[in-house]
Amino acid sequence: MPTPIEKLKLGWIGTGRMGYEMAARLAKGGCDIAVWNRTKAKADPLAQYGARVVSDLKDLAARDIVFCMVSTWDDVKQVIGRLLAGSAKPRMVVECSSISLDGSAELRGILKEKGVEYLAAPVSGNAKVIKAGKLTFVVSGPRPAYEAARPYLDMMGTGSSYVGEGELARIAKICHNVMLGVVIQNLCEITILAQKVGMPRHAFLDFLNKSVMGSMFTRYKTPALVNLDFHVTFTPRLLRKDLDLGLDAGREFEVPMPVTSITRDILQQMIGQGMTEQDFSTLLLAQAKASGLDLKPENVQVTDGLSS
Amino acid sequence: MPTPIEKLKLGWIGTGRMGYEMAARLAKGGCDIAVWNRTKAKADPLAQYGARVVSDLKDLAARDIVFCMVSTWDDVKQVIGRLLAGSAKPRMVVECSSISLDGSAELRGILKEKGVEYLAAPVSGNAKVIKAGKLTFVVSGPRPAYEAARPYLDMMGTGSSYVGEGELARIAKICHNVMLGVVIQNLCEITILAQKVGMPRHAFLDFLNKSVMGSMFTRYKTPALVNLDFHVTFTPRLLRKDLDLGLDAGREFEVPMPVTSITRDILQQMIGQGMTEQDFSTLLLAQAKASGLDLKPENVQVTDGLSS
Amino acid sequence: MPTPIEKLKLGWIGTGRMGYEMAARLAKGGCDIAVWNRTKAKADPLAQYGARVVSDLKDLAARDIVFCMVSTWDDVKQVIGRLLAGSAKPRMVVECSSISLDGSAELRGILKEKGVEYLAAPVSGNAKVIKAGKLTFVVSGPRPAYEAARPYLDMMGTGSSYVGEGELARIAKICHNVMLGVVIQNLCEITILAQKVGMPRHAFLDFLNKSVMGSMFTRYKTPALVNLDFHVTFTPRLLRKDLDLGLDAGREFEVPMPVTSITRDILQQMIGQGMTEQDFSTLLLAQAKASGLDLKPENVQVTDGLSS
Amino acid sequence: MPTPIEKLKLGWIGTGRMGYEMAARLAKGGCDIAVWNRTKAKADPLAQYGARVVSDLKDLAARDIVFCMVSTWDDVKQVIGRLLAGSAKPRMVVECSSISLDGSAELRGILKEKGVEYLAAPVSGNAKVIKAGKLTFVVSGPRPAYEAARPYLDMMGTGSSYVGEGELARIAKICHNVMLGVVIQNLCEITILAQKVGMPRHAFLDFLNKSVMGSMFTRYKTPALVNLDFHVTFTPRLLRKDLDLGLDAGREFEVPMPVTSITRDILQQMIGQGMTEQDFSTLLLAQAKASGLDLKPENVQVTDGLSS
Repeated sequence: MPTPIEKLKLGWIGTGRMGYEMAARLAKGGCDIAVWNRTKAKADPLAQYGARVVSDLKDLAARDIVFCMVSTWDDVKQVIGRLLAGSAKPRMVVECSSISLDGSAELRGILKEKGVEYLAAPVSGNAKVIKAGKLTFVVSGPRPAYEAARPYLDMMGTGSSYVGEGELARIAKICHNVMLGVVIQNLCEITILAQKVGMPRHAFLDFLNKSVMGSMFTRYKTPALVNLDFHVTFTPRLLRKDLDLGLDAGREFEVPMPVTSITRDILQQMIGQGMTEQDFSTLLLAQAKASGLDLKPENVQVTDGLSS
Repeated sequence: MPTPIEKLKLGWIGTGRMGYEMAARLAKGGCDIAVWNRTKAKADPLAQYGARVVSDLKDLAARDIVFCMVSTWDDVKQVIGRLLAGSAKPRMVVECSSISLDGSAELRGILKEKGVEYLAAPVSGNAKVIKAGKLTFVVSGPRPAYEAARPYLDMMGTGSSYVGEGELARIAKICHNVMLGVVIQNLCEITILAQKVGMPRHAFLDFLNKSVMGSMFTRYKTPALVNLDFHVTFTPRLLRKDLDLGLDAGREFEVPMPVTSITRDILQQMIGQGMTEQDFSTLLLAQAKASGLDLKPENVQVTDGLSS
Repeated sequence: MPTPIEKLKLGWIGTGRMGYEMAARLAKGGCDIAVWNRTKAKADPLAQYGARVVSDLKDLAARDIVFCMVSTWDDVKQVIGRLLAGSAKPRMVVECSSISLDGSAELRGILKEKGVEYLAAPVSGNAKVIKAGKLTFVVSGPRPAYEAARPYLDMMGTGSSYVGEGELARIAKICHNVMLGVVIQNLCEITILAQKVGMPRHAFLDFLNKSVMGSMFTRYKTPALVNLDFHVTFTPRLLRKDLDLGLDAGREFEVPMPVTSITRDILQQMIGQGMTEQDFSTLLLAQAKASGLDLKPENVQVTDGLSS
Repeated sequence: MPTPIEKLKLGWIGTGRMGYEMAARLAKGGCDIAVWNRTKAKADPLAQYGARVVSDLKDLAARDIVFCMVSTWDDVKQVIGRLLAGSAKPRMVVECSSISLDGSAELRGILKEKGVEYLAAPVSGNAKVIKAGKLTFVVSGPRPAYEAARPYLDMMGTGSSYVGEGELARIAKICHNVMLGVVIQNLCEITILAQKVGMPRHAFLDFLNKSVMGSMFTRYKTPALVNLDFHVTFTPRLLRKDLDLGLDAGREFEVPMPVTSITRDILQQMIGQGMTEQDFSTLLLAQAKASGLDLKPENVQVTDGLSS
């Protein structure tokens, strides 16, 4: 039975686009939460929901659970180092950033030495998904730690899934991103086909999104595919990195992944052609080009399935 | 503005597993509906919802809109022939079966000659999806015909999408099934990888289903992937047929579809090994075998996302 | 035991770039050969080697074996029709053009009706290969007919292979062209890789051509790959047609062909980008583009392995 | 102008199946050659051709050029260590084993420190190819060193190709093996197709081998493909290793290699099914299985293109 959620003291590190929304949900939910961010001004608005914004990372060391949501493994290493620099230490750290398997394992070692429990808890979703209350977590580490943290994780979205010990959650997230890559490429193939046959993209995607094949992902990518707004949510090179991590795991565990391999190669073709600075969904443009089609925005208002 | 839905007289041909549930929704919704089925006994229970069950197909000829949901193009041709054998004829036929582009075009010709409007309206979903109220339609044909039929289509599930003139809806459905093939193969790749790395399949799929990548499809296939219950919903050969139709359209319209091609070839490898009589999701078994893994049912109760 | 080769009277239809060289080899070999070409002037120089150049196709009808090497199935049908328009008819027709399976079967029917034996005998090689004495034939039809024709086929190059009854030789030729497609794409992948790593293309290909992987094909394509001379020998669309015929046969006979499928899709990507008018080996340019490389001719004299 | 070949003193390390044949060709060619092998008895027969067989590796240290042809990088490191353990040292080491890029670079460092020149010179061919006089080398390192070694390299087969500085030859060899993998898989696809359509494998391959697509490789693999003799020449796992090295280079240099990727995945499928102990050409069996075909040896005598 987990401790009633109002009883645990929470710490939060990192209030970027995603971290801010996540911390806000905990604060609004009535949690006792203290927040730190490198640029404090970005965290300050959280005070309105009852969060305490601190200037010194060490002020989070005595919290029960400290969540970490920053950008890179280097950032994680640095903030955790400073968090634990004094004599106080939290019961548990829950690391939600997108870090590598190796980074996650190194962090586990660092925390173990200090006697701090550790959950790897990467997320599925972006800032808009969080705002819409639909974030999910995949979690690995000691099960009792998960049971303690679970109420807070679930409060941030629609739930969490526990997949086992160690860094398994990192692999699960890589698998998730592999699927994201394959599905976007497949969407590009069939959307361009539908268009060349005579359907407007928005009409075809309206059907697909309502159909059994539709997912939150296909829906929130629809505005990009219809109106060709390719501001970055995830770069082609970052997607390639995750596909390569998936393929590396496939090599190590001897799992052939042909559909993944081909998706990776098509992405590389696009990167090779210099399409690296916009969103990975420019795969649609590459697919159109390879199909002899000059793509135009349809300028039709379409929903992303998240906005209210 | 469509005629108020209680005013149009509906006819329904075909009460197999899917047709029955669809007709039932219209009857329960208060529509004036007359139903015919080759084996009348299968249609009889619809009377309890207010449907009139007829013995002679010609009794449907004077209805405003006649829906058709049978098995094959041969069936469609036969029932429509008998429907129009007399002097009466409906204003419109809405054909929902999975028939080919060519069949659909031939039917359009037959109906045009008789002055009957025609909508191609294949569906996304199976009997369970309909029962859960989540069926969707993709529709092509004259737009005014669609506007007239739309209230009834939408009453059967969560909505319909209009994609244009002629047989476009048939292509849209093929694209949908292409995606189904690619997504199941991708699911098999990452699920087997997750398992070999150390995650139970049900735990990994629980995460995926909750994540932004989760769809009605990934959810209702989860029991099969977890507990290896592969009773047929769609055979490997039928899936191959639709992948080939997609690839044929890709050839005709000069759209390269590499991810689709590879999925098709992997499916063919499975068919070649004699795995033809169970569900197409036995791709999981083929993937496990190719990964040196002996798969066991996990015997864990998992939801299909549809049952209440 | 075949009839001594000087005893049979040969007829030859078609003296385009390849047909001319083939007929020349028979004439130079001392055969009794009569030649017809739509534009007679193109055939006239064969007289210097002892061939008799005729103006009327019917003058070939009384020859023992009539070889046919024209451009398209329509041409074949027309010339054979005129050849057989009178009362005389040859013992055998040997058809060497690149015609389809269906065309070949139709021709077999036409000839059978007239009591004329028929060999399907497509070739491997181009005009340069013939000149270098390295043409080969793949032959199907009745074996005794093959034994009778064999000495003449072998005289035109380095030999012939008999693969069985009916139109099997047409399939063998399609398989040959499938391999040509896969090998050129693979060559492009590794040649661009070698170049990006730091090797001049001519140096890398010099090694490959000398190695156990080198073939007549890799050697005679080397000048194009090194110096980027892409005058047409075989268009991208014609290669695509043969890959599609191979994939169609794979479908019909349930043989998965993943490497072929992907090659086909990459070729389609190139065609979609408008690269259709030069040689199929512009796949190198497409591969370079997809690899972020701006290709330059190396302007190094390299051998095609054929010229003396 | 290279030193006349009879003037340089050669050393040879390693007389396994390939090394023996290579050293024999130099000895027979009249070179002044001293040979060492771990198991001296295996080297002894070389004395009949005029080679001096030594018991102590250090006896080779004062030779001008020392060739090294052993099994693994560990072996290379050990023998070179012992070769250079004393005060004498050769002018040059020519390393012909199949070692990795990293191993080759490490060796270059070791030798540079000692002031010994170094050529990376992997080979194309097997023991039978050497016996048939058809071995080739791909060489990288300082060009003057290559010019000095070239006469000896060329004496061992049909020639050598210089591709540049450093370890480039190692990459060239990897590219060569990538092609080997793609070509064998392609051969399997088309050979099984040809067979299912109705051609005996030996007849189809006879055509292919004679055609412009035929290579030494397709010819010497023909007996295996026809008569299903799969004694190991190169294991599936070793081929996979080289395909992975090729794909790794493709990642590093941003060259998409889709045909290579798919070949790699198909090979992994075969390995996953436990087919690891026989020759890599058992890909034919895997392809047959995936095509619903039960393969039988044809028991037809076919040439490997090498035996006299």
